[in-house]
Amino acid sequence: MKILITGFEPFGGETVNPSWEVAKQLDGLIVSGAQLVVVQLPCVFSKSLQVLAQALDAHQPHMVLSLGQADGRSDFSIERVAINVCDARIPDNEGAQPIDEPVVAHGPAAYFSSLPIKKMATALKAQGFPAAISQTAGTFVCNQVFYGLQHALAGKGVLSGFVHVPLMPIQAAMRSGASLASMSTETLKAAVLCALEVMVLHLQQGGTDAQDAKVQMGATH
Amino acid sequence: MKILITGFEPFGGETVNPSWEVAKQLDGLIVSGAQLVVVQLPCVFSKSLQVLAQALDAHQPHMVLSLGQADGRSDFSIERVAINVCDARIPDNEGAQPIDEPVVAHGPAAYFSSLPIKKMATALKAQGFPAAISQTAGTFVCNQVFYGLQHALAGKGVLSGFVHVPLMPIQAAMRSGASLASMSTETLKAAVLCALEVMVLHLQQGGTDAQDAKVQMGATH
Amino acid sequence: MKILITGFEPFGGETVNPSWEVAKQLDGLIVSGAQLVVVQLPCVFSKSLQVLAQALDAHQPHMVLSLGQADGRSDFSIERVAINVCDARIPDNEGAQPIDEPVVAHGPAAYFSSLPIKKMATALKAQGFPAAISQTAGTFVCNQVFYGLQHALAGKGVLSGFVHVPLMPIQAAMRSGASLASMSTETLKAAVLCALEVMVLHLQQGGTDAQDAKVQMGATH
Amino acid sequence: MKILITGFEPFGGETVNPSWEVAKQLDGLIVSGAQLVVVQLPCVFSKSLQVLAQALDAHQPHMVLSLGQADGRSDFSIERVAINVCDARIPDNEGAQPIDEPVVAHGPAAYFSSLPIKKMATALKAQGFPAAISQTAGTFVCNQVFYGLQHALAGKGVLSGFVHVPLMPIQAAMRSGASLASMSTETLKAAVLCALEVMVLHLQQGGTDAQDAKVQMGATH
Repeated sequence: MKILITGFEPFGGETVNPSWEVAKQLDGLIVSGAQLVVVQLPCVFSKSLQVLAQALDAHQPHMVLSLGQADGRSDFSIERVAINVCDARIPDNEGAQPIDEPVVAHGPAAYFSSLPIKKMATALKAQGFPAAISQTAGTFVCNQVFYGLQHALAGKGVLSGFVHVPLMPIQAAMRSGASLASMSTETLKAAVLCALEVMVLHLQQGGTDAQDAKVQMGATH
Repeated sequence: MKILITGFEPFGGETVNPSWEVAKQLDGLIVSGAQLVVVQLPCVFSKSLQVLAQALDAHQPHMVLSLGQADGRSDFSIERVAINVCDARIPDNEGAQPIDEPVVAHGPAAYFSSLPIKKMATALKAQGFPAAISQTAGTFVCNQVFYGLQHALAGKGVLSGFVHVPLMPIQAAMRSGASLASMSTETLKAAVLCALEVMVLHLQQGGTDAQDAKVQMGATH
Repeated sequence: MKILITGFEPFGGETVNPSWEVAKQLDGLIVSGAQLVVVQLPCVFSKSLQVLAQALDAHQPHMVLSLGQADGRSDFSIERVAINVCDARIPDNEGAQPIDEPVVAHGPAAYFSSLPIKKMATALKAQGFPAAISQTAGTFVCNQVFYGLQHALAGKGVLSGFVHVPLMPIQAAMRSGASLASMSTETLKAAVLCALEVMVLHLQQGGTDAQDAKVQMGATH
Repeated sequence: MKILITGFEPFGGETVNPSWEVAKQLDGLIVSGAQLVVVQLPCVFSKSLQVLAQALDAHQPHMVLSLGQADGRSDFSIERVAINVCDARIPDNEGAQPIDEPVVAHGPAAYFSSLPIKKMATALKAQGFPAAISQTAGTFVCNQVFYGLQHALAGKGVLSGFVHVPLMPIQAAMRSGASLASMSTETLKAAVLCALEVMVLHLQQGGTDAQDAKVQMGATH
C-alpha cells in the first residue's frame, strides 16, 4: 500500500511551512505496512494542480493526505469539505489573486473528504493530540488543492482528504502583536503518523464512508 | 415582486431568536417595489424543510432570504455555500441530534448561494453595517434549511440564500462568562433592508451570478 | 449631585469615537437627580491629564465616569484597575509613543476603580446590556486617563472609574478582514444611563467599596 | 546564584499542569552558572502563599520565576503586574471561591514584575518561541501567588515575576468543542531555559528596571 502526502511551499512571506516541514520527514517511512511518499506543492493557483496530477500519476497511491498551513488554528484540523471556488484574500506565490473563479469549470459545487475524518479526530484526541473537524478549508490554494484532489480521484476508489495544521512555534514567534497558536513539528509529526495509522486500518477494513465513526463534531454555524 | 424572508424560532434554551425578531417586523413591507412576506421556521430537523416547502408553495416568491442566529458572530454574515450534511453539536428543539446524515439523500455535496453576496456585503459595509462573507453555515438546522432551500429552488430562477446574524444584546447579556458579540434589532433591521434593496436591484438587472461584484472576500483557511 | 463624564476624541485613524459619540448626547441630562456634564479628552499622552484636571477643577463633580473605545471588545467593559505605566502599541494623536514610562512618577503601582463595578455589571446584565468586568485597561491613553483620574481624586471622596466600550457599527464596517464586535450608540447610551443610575444610588447609600455586590466576575488568568 | 522556580499542582479537574510538568524537569539544573530549585504550589488560596514562603525561606533564592497554566493562551505569557484582589471564577482545589478579597490586607493595589520582562520576551521571540507581555494575570490563585511573591520580596533585591504558559497538547485534546492553543513540554522547557538565561545575565549586569529593553509590548486596551 502506498500513501501520498503533500505539503506546501512557504507562502505569505514566510520562509517555512509546517505542512512541508513535517511532510519531508515522512518520505519513505512505512506506517502500518503502507509506504509513504511525499511531494511539495507550489502555493500557486496556476501550478498546484499540475504538480499534484503528476504526483498522482507517478505514484499511483492508494490514499492521499494533503496538508496545509492555517494561521491561527490550534489543532490538527481535519477538513470535511472542499468547495469549487477560489477567492484569494492574499496573492499567491506568483502574484495571482483570483476572485470567485471555479477550481474546475462546471465541476460540482463541492466534494466531501473520503477519509475517515471522525475516526481520525477521535483517535488523535484519545492519543493526546488536539484535533477537530473543520467545516471549511477556506477559498485559497489549500481549498483549491483539496477540491482538485477529490475531483481527480472521484470514483477511483482512492481515499483522500485535507488537513490544516497550525503554525510552527518559530512562525508564531515572528508575528508582531498577539501571538497565534502553534504546534511543534515533533507533535505534528506524531499526529500525522497517528492519523495515517487510522487511515490504513480503515482502508483495510473496507474504507467506506459508512464505516466512519458516528460521533458529533459539527458546528451550529 | 415578492420576497420571502424566513427566521427561526428560538433554540438552545433561548427565549428569542434575532432572525425572527427582525423578520416579523418586515412582514408586509414594500422594499424597492418588492413585497415582503415572512415565515417562522421550527428549529427541528424533521420539520424545518416541510414548513419551508409550504411557504415556498404558498407564496411563490421571486427571491428568498433565510436568516438564522449565529452565537458569537459579530456581523451580517452572508453565507456562500450550504453542504449536504447534518452533524448536530446540540439537540434540536425536539431532541434530535443527527450525525453525518445528508440533508437530501443522494443530493449534491453542496449548493452555492444564488444571491449577489459580494454586492450585498459591499453595500452593507459602505452604508455602515458590519458585514462579511462566511465560507461555512455550519452543520446544524441553519445549514439544513439553506441546503434544502437551494435544492428546492435549483433551476427555477428564484434567487435564494442565507444570512447568519449576531445575538441580540439581551441574549449576550444573559450568557455567563465572556460576552459574545451582539447587534441591536434596529441595526439588524436596517441591515436587512439594505441587503434586500441590493437583491431587488440585482434581480431587476438580470440576476446572474456573473453580475455579482468582483471583490475578494475569501479566507485563506 | 454632579457627574462628570469624559469621552475621547477619535484616534488610530478613525473619524469617530463611540465614547464621545455617546458622551456628547448626555450633556446636561439629569439622571436620578444628578446632573451630567461632559468633556472630551484628547488622545494625547501629554495633554489628556491636563484637560481632565481642568474639567475636575471646573465642575467639582461628585462622581466621574470616563469612557474609552476598545476595538474588538463586545460589551460595556467596566475596568477594575488602572496601572502606573504607559506602553503605547501605536502612536497617540500627536505621534508620541512612550514605552514603559509611569503615568505619575513615583505614584503607586495601581489604583482600583472606586465605582460599584459589580453592582453596575449586574444591573446592566439584568437589564439586557452585555457587560463585564475587565481586569486590564491596557497601557495606552485610556489607562493613563484612568490612572490619572484615580490619582487626582484619591482620598477626596469622589467616586470614579473607567469603562471601555465597543466600536460603533460604522467603525466595524470599515475594517477590512474579519469583523470586530460593535454596539449601536442607542444601546450604548441606554447602558451608560443604566450604569449612572446604579452609581447615583450607590453614592446615596454611602458609596463604600464594602457596599459593592459580592458576585464573582474574575478571570482565572 | 540560586533561582527558585515554582509550578502549580493541577486544578479545574485536570490531572496535569504544564507549569509543574516543566518545572519538575528543571530541578537541580545549572543555567548560566545559576542553580535551579523547584517547588510545587497548591492551587489553594489558603495554602499557596504559605508553601511559597517556606520555599523562599528554605532556598533564599536570588531570583524567582513562578509559572502557572493559562487555558487558551498560546504563548509564553510574561506577566507585567499583580493586583491585590482575589475574585475566583471557579473554586480552588479545596472549594474556596473568594470574591473581591485582598491578597494582602492593606497591601498596595499592585506590584510590577521585577524581572526584565521586555528582554525576556524579545530574546524568546528572537529564538523562535512565541512570547508576549500580558497586562493581567487574572484574579485567581496565579495572580495571588504573583502578588504574594512580589510582596514578600519587596525591597529585598530579589528579582521575581510570573509567567503564564499554554495548556499541554494532551490537555487541549481532552477538551470538547473548539480546541484551545497548546505548547509541547519540550518547547516550553526550552523557552523557560531561554528566559532563565536572560534573567541571569540581567542580574549579573545590575538587575535594575531601568536596564530592561525599551521595546513596546503594550495593549491599547
